[in-house]
Amino acid sequence: MRVMGVDPGLTRCGLSMVEGGAGRKVTALDVDVVRTPADAPLAKRLLAISDQVEHWLDTHRPQVVAIERVFANANANTAMGTAQAGGVIALAAARRGIDVHFHTPSEVKAAVTGNGRADKAQVTEMITRILGLQAKPRPADAADALALAICHLWRAPMLARMAAAEAQAAEQRRKYTARLKAAKA
Amino acid sequence: MRVMGVDPGLTRCGLSMVEGGAGRKVTALDVDVVRTPADAPLAKRLLAISDQVEHWLDTHRPQVVAIERVFANANANTAMGTAQAGGVIALAAARRGIDVHFHTPSEVKAAVTGNGRADKAQVTEMITRILGLQAKPRPADAADALALAICHLWRAPMLARMAAAEAQAAEQRRKYTARLKAAKA
Repeated sequence: MRVMGVDPGLTRCGLSMVEGGAGRKVTALDVDVVRTPADAPLAKRLLAISDQVEHWLDTHRPQVVAIERVFANANANTAMGTAQAGGVIALAAARRGIDVHFHTPSEVKAAVTGNGRADKAQVTEMITRILGLQAKPRPADAADALALAICHLWRAPMLARMAAAEAQAAEQRRKYTARLKAAKA
Repeated sequence: MRVMGVDPGLTRCGLSMVEGGAGRKVTALDVDVVRTPADAPLAKRLLAISDQVEHWLDTHRPQVVAIERVFANANANTAMGTAQAGGVIALAAARRGIDVHFHTPSEVKAAVTGNGRADKAQVTEMITRILGLQAKPRPADAADALALAICHLWRAPMLARMAAAEAQAAEQRRKYTARLKAAKA
């Protein structure tokens, strides 16, 4: 499975493309950070990010796009810009019929390091080891984008099992309701 | 000038198209509320909103899109969805070379009612009067989208004067710096 990882942002937006192999084997195909000038109008910045992402999607053709789930945190204004960047990236994927999944920062940290509260240095260290890279990926946005993609690759089987179980439960509820209705009639 | 007003949102997104005439005369051309189901995946909801907005842009061909500026407020999770919806709408306009402007809720209220702290009923009342409508626009998202467009129409001359003054100041700074450099050389 080929997964595009995205650490969304207006000023720096981390993009990665990772391919999963047998077991936990993963290979990095590409990683980059898209930058847009802080003094440019918001709509132009979103357009620049969208254009780059569309180019990546059309060139690498991933099956899934994994985006960091943003929470309104301490710096609320940054969070809004991050949400807007994430929104246009999810849109570009949806336009191409590509699945979009969101993972929280602690899900990413837990998947990659085994600790949901790991710091940036630990995440970068593990990413470098997992991908067998010669040098640590820089800046942090690039490492985060790689971590996002790896997180999705490793969580995907579990997410698929959960979705299957949920679908089964919904089917059983449907059958039960149908039997109840038949019994009342 | 033809202005599209947008009250962004995932569950309900208000869209309006308003045409400005001489003085403060304004005419409503269209108003609608796009709804997306809360249980649909985020990327699909953004796609549905984007498709509708693109249809409006291509049908009505506005010169400007005016979007409500979202702040991370009490309900932070709603604000994130609102920001994402606003982001894909700004992107659709930027793709077509259409100017995008953001106005805060208090700027809108002040422009339409003269009071930045007016309540929803007062805004709807004024919108109905300004546009000479037979009935009050409903739901609130429709009224807000109309208010956004009217706000932009009426603020546009002032915004243009401010932009011109700023450009002039930048030009003077540039000339002054050039003179300083020439004097030092």
